[in-house]
Amino acid sequence: MTDDNSIYIGGKPFMNYVTGVVMQFTAKKADTVIVKARGKFISRAVDVAEVASKRFLEGSVGIKDIKVDSEEFKNKEGRDVRVSSMEIVLGRN
Amino acid sequence: MTDDNSIYIGGKPFMNYVTGVVMQFTAKKADTVIVKARGKFISRAVDVAEVASKRFLEGSVGIKDIKVDSEEFKNKEGRDVRVSSMEIVLGRN
Repeated sequence: MTDDNSIYIGGKPFMNYVTGVVMQFTAKKADTVIVKARGKFISRAVDVAEVASKRFLEGSVGIKDIKVDSEEFKNKEGRDVRVSSMEIVLGRN
Repeated sequence: MTDDNSIYIGGKPFMNYVTGVVMQFTAKKADTVIVKARGKFISRAVDVAEVASKRFLEGSVGIKDIKVDSEEFKNKEGRDVRVSSMEIVLGRN
């Protein structure tokens, strides 16, 4: 699986991710960029997608698809924990 | 606009929201329930939708649509602030 156009959202400064998305579309001429996040970073992924598409790439790029999923696993204490994940597909309009 | 089937996610205990979603489908026989959130509560909205649909209503209810949006406004200091919002539409399979 080639996944060059994916941006994983974490705890780095917010604008790093926005710039990353914008650069994929402008410098790298990507047709789609997938913004991915898990757990608490999901809110941030939405912020990144919204700021990139509405402020920096207004009119030329939009959200094409949104998927959410979750997986359950046992944590160190043996408790079942469910962690959500999200993928936002941004594409040229 | 009648919006009876909407659940707004905030800072209450997590299971309150999950129970709210499940009750809409079971006790109130709703066909669709819309889970809504803004800002940092978006991650939580995804968690609520995933736990309700995959653990409590497994097989009978699934995510039918996801929309995100954002609005920009000036905060008290006069700075432009953008706040994201999300709607997750859950429906019977």
